[in-house]
Amino acid sequence: MSSILHTVSSTIQSLSGAWRPQSNNAPPNGALSTATMSSNALFEHILVLNVPLPDAHRALLAEHSKNITHIPSARTPGSVPDEAYRKADVIYGFPTGLESWAQVPSLKFVQLDSAGADSVVRGKMWHEERAEKVVMATVAGIHMAPISQHFIMTTLALFHHLQEQILVAQVDKRWGKDTEFGGQLFVQELKGKTVGVLGYGHIGRECARLSAAFGAKVLAATSDGQQKPQTGYVEDGMGDPDGNIPEAWYSTKDEEAFKEFLSKCDVLLLALPSTGATHHILSSATIGYLPSHAIIVNIGRGDAVDTDALLEALDEKKLAGAALDVVEGEPLADGHPLFGRKDVLITPHLSGRTTMYLERSIHIFAENLRRLREGQQVWNQVDYKRGY
Amino acid sequence: MSSILHTVSSTIQSLSGAWRPQSNNAPPNGALSTATMSSNALFEHILVLNVPLPDAHRALLAEHSKNITHIPSARTPGSVPDEAYRKADVIYGFPTGLESWAQVPSLKFVQLDSAGADSVVRGKMWHEERAEKVVMATVAGIHMAPISQHFIMTTLALFHHLQEQILVAQVDKRWGKDTEFGGQLFVQELKGKTVGVLGYGHIGRECARLSAAFGAKVLAATSDGQQKPQTGYVEDGMGDPDGNIPEAWYSTKDEEAFKEFLSKCDVLLLALPSTGATHHILSSATIGYLPSHAIIVNIGRGDAVDTDALLEALDEKKLAGAALDVVEGEPLADGHPLFGRKDVLITPHLSGRTTMYLERSIHIFAENLRRLREGQQVWNQVDYKRGY
Repeated sequence: MSSILHTVSSTIQSLSGAWRPQSNNAPPNGALSTATMSSNALFEHILVLNVPLPDAHRALLAEHSKNITHIPSARTPGSVPDEAYRKADVIYGFPTGLESWAQVPSLKFVQLDSAGADSVVRGKMWHEERAEKVVMATVAGIHMAPISQHFIMTTLALFHHLQEQILVAQVDKRWGKDTEFGGQLFVQELKGKTVGVLGYGHIGRECARLSAAFGAKVLAATSDGQQKPQTGYVEDGMGDPDGNIPEAWYSTKDEEAFKEFLSKCDVLLLALPSTGATHHILSSATIGYLPSHAIIVNIGRGDAVDTDALLEALDEKKLAGAALDVVEGEPLADGHPLFGRKDVLITPHLSGRTTMYLERSIHIFAENLRRLREGQQVWNQVDYKRGY
Repeated sequence: MSSILHTVSSTIQSLSGAWRPQSNNAPPNGALSTATMSSNALFEHILVLNVPLPDAHRALLAEHSKNITHIPSARTPGSVPDEAYRKADVIYGFPTGLESWAQVPSLKFVQLDSAGADSVVRGKMWHEERAEKVVMATVAGIHMAPISQHFIMTTLALFHHLQEQILVAQVDKRWGKDTEFGGQLFVQELKGKTVGVLGYGHIGRECARLSAAFGAKVLAATSDGQQKPQTGYVEDGMGDPDGNIPEAWYSTKDEEAFKEFLSKCDVLLLALPSTGATHHILSSATIGYLPSHAIIVNIGRGDAVDTDALLEALDEKKLAGAALDVVEGEPLADGHPLFGRKDVLITPHLSGRTTMYLERSIHIFAENLRRLREGQQVWNQVDYKRGY
């Protein structure tokens, strides 16, 4: 039995919150309208599913509800007791087996512990009228720090020929020579380079901020090419709240503008979600717009880059290198041509696996509980139609 | 014949500069007194030794002298013609075979193209009275960007288990699993960590600035533990001009203070020169003051770390990892126990080999020529007694 049920009940009767959609409260940045509870009303019952809940985290939640049910591992259908769903007005984690509103008559708020919502909101119930009375939020933004670190690390690794240096020390077990890594003066600097950020969301913005800290010039490309403020959860001092870092913005929908953007990149960062518009956005044609000394770093979704076109461009020296944490068709097959190349740094889609995940996730959840209780917009509210 | 002589002469007679020591012009930060020329006086003859001189760089120098002699490769004794030394009032590069003042009767300024001066100023002539009338400068600070990049890159590489990820992709040619790299949530973040900078010079300060940009807390340890401004050549926006970044300063000479400093480090950066005081500053005893989860990064001189003590601490899990661009006894012998360990990232002392070296070196040289002509203190003036 992988499902263990922990329930904290209290003899103190929880206050029932006045719950109402607040359709006229949309913030100016275009985020969704939200729903509020009257101030200080506690939640009835928080159901925590498929997330560890150390005592310190439970204590944070205890400020918002007297009743907390914790099922650390409930991944199989039926592993969440009907009674647990029936009582819950708040769910935190992944709601296994939740398929109809009849299961969750009291539900008001779902805090997913994932950055995306697609696997949940494809369920039919989230497109029924009742869904409009329930707020759902993700922990989008939780990966800003580790994935942006990864971007800087792998960019610099290509600039320093670190793969080759590591292979000499780890495999050959000897002291390398500069001639093995490109000659006497081979280390490229981020300082003075132009970093093009394709997809200017949470992670793109933090990568922009760090690139600028290293002295790089930043350009941004988005579907509409308009400077926009950052929305959703952002930690203090991170990202680019007002979108002021890029020296210029380009629209990916304007072919000439996108071409100009690519032609200026020494480093192209792909920080895109997977959508119809981003599929193979880096193709044989668009790779051709990049300077031949450019490198690309993909930390978004693998299908943004046409793998065959990438390999061909590298072979023909039309591109200097690639760092890929994501690729088409993960996991990549053993012995795939992308493996074993000095100009390709492959990491297996683990860049966001921060030790801070649970800490940051509970922080977002607790903050969202506070916001709901005080009638404020939650961080990262999901638009069921849009799917994220 | 590896020495090729290029000479540019002009029919225009160069103006002879009025050259005088200016002993009362020491700047307040304790830098050395300098010598000046009257404004706009050109130099007689610039001798460029052992440094490439592309046309664009030659053009920069042509603003300061009508006569430029360039010997791109003069590494063997006698490879610099007597005539070239005799005429030179300025030397740029490494002065091969220069041993007495009789060789260089006109010499006023030597711009070394290295960050250190020790191999030159150990010569007897630099401790004779005549030396006081000659200004010598290094290009110290030239490595700030690449070596600080290297610090961030290798610190993050240890945090992301990048060595193991690279070996899986490059050697095994397969897609790795999180369990091979430390489990589901294994990536450590620089954000929130404490970075202790041991040696707060050009490179230490730039590493501090970058660490702070990632959200780390910075502590500094120096011999006297006093907050000090930065001196010498610094590029705009880099380093820590006033020493404001560290939250606290510690003296390495005060055992209790140094112990407290080490005990607070999640990451210990060694950015020290090699002196009697820094030899084995990280020993079995001092490693013991570091938290067992700490990592160390050495980008200064190898003998600051006792290798045997380091290996023992790693084996006994008293330390989590080390990134070493420098080690005792370089080059490290083939098969040395430091090679092949997952908790040690060895790079062969090439972190400063920036493609920007010549660009930055000529920039420092040209700026120093301008400063001398305008009676200002040069960047990075060498103190012959101190040796740097």
